[in-house]
Amino acid sequence: MRILLAGATGTLGTYVGKELAARGHDILAVARRSGDLRYDITDPAQVSAMYERAGRVDAVVSTAGHTPFKAITELTAEDYLAAYRGKVAGQIELVRQGLARIGERGSFTLISGVLAREPIPSGSAASMANGALEAFVRAAAIEIAPQRINAVSPTVFTESLGTYGDYFPGMEPVPLARVAQAYVRSVEGALTGQVFVL
Amino acid sequence: MRILLAGATGTLGTYVGKELAARGHDILAVARRSGDLRYDITDPAQVSAMYERAGRVDAVVSTAGHTPFKAITELTAEDYLAAYRGKVAGQIELVRQGLARIGERGSFTLISGVLAREPIPSGSAASMANGALEAFVRAAAIEIAPQRINAVSPTVFTESLGTYGDYFPGMEPVPLARVAQAYVRSVEGALTGQVFVL
Repeated sequence: MRILLAGATGTLGTYVGKELAARGHDILAVARRSGDLRYDITDPAQVSAMYERAGRVDAVVSTAGHTPFKAITELTAEDYLAAYRGKVAGQIELVRQGLARIGERGSFTLISGVLAREPIPSGSAASMANGALEAFVRAAAIEIAPQRINAVSPTVFTESLGTYGDYFPGMEPVPLARVAQAYVRSVEGALTGQVFVL
Repeated sequence: MRILLAGATGTLGTYVGKELAARGHDILAVARRSGDLRYDITDPAQVSAMYERAGRVDAVVSTAGHTPFKAITELTAEDYLAAYRGKVAGQIELVRQGLARIGERGSFTLISGVLAREPIPSGSAASMANGALEAFVRAAAIEIAPQRINAVSPTVFTESLGTYGDYFPGMEPVPLARVAQAYVRSVEGALTGQVFVL
């Protein structure tokens, strides 16, 4: 398949891109400052330009999302809006504009995260964004069939424990290899409206 | 208790206000165009002015939230943003600014809805907003204790079947009386971080 991969240069994006390529797929890597297609998906106009440039794709895969982390007493209204824009709006835009661009049996696989269901201190904006994304995926699925949509919702990566482990005490990490398999399952399988919890 | 009620003039707000008043609470009704305090909670500056005017309150209760309903192929990026502003940002702002205004044992009770978990066609923006709200509530709870926060997440109201019933085929409606009891439970009880599913 010809797969558009947004967030291609991040820790997860790099791994997922390699895994999908190893399975014979043709990857179009999208990122802000490097990759095959250089666009910021939080800007709807750039999403249009990206799809225009990309041509026909069979699947859209996203590992792109950024939210502020601060104590709830320090988060501003603008911080929550930044979380919405950084993790929700951009990924919704990939779907919204992608519906007319991908094949009738095409799929979208978006990134959420454990904070949707298991919060941590300073994570309320991230939790909000992940909860929004997962509910959107369940809702979109019933309207876009036979096109499909799923979310991958991992806990902290084993490979990122050095950086983020202190924020997730006692929580079992997940290796990137397992997370990448959830993307494979979403792209190559037939499920829709699912949140793959890892 | 002295309870600030946002969205006081809606179908649910009116009912919840009467129920809480019947239980001996002192209700400060907030709505855009009527009620004791006339403010638009989707505007952070008006939330500040509202709290300034309200003085000390023991609990904040919200039944206020509005989102666009359209087919996913017709929803624009602005519509999703309107859903975020109309149901998520305003209620987060009630909490964000309210933390320093309500008592140490005060509580927030926000409104979500069934579409967070059971979508309907044309409801993807509403689902997104409800999912965001519920995840925020779970996350906020662990940071604000001993202050408390819960969400009430009802399906279609029995009393609204005439207007909205066609959108919820086969779904068992909930009477406003039961939904109001969830607000009572949240305000007078001791639970936090809960989503009361009705």
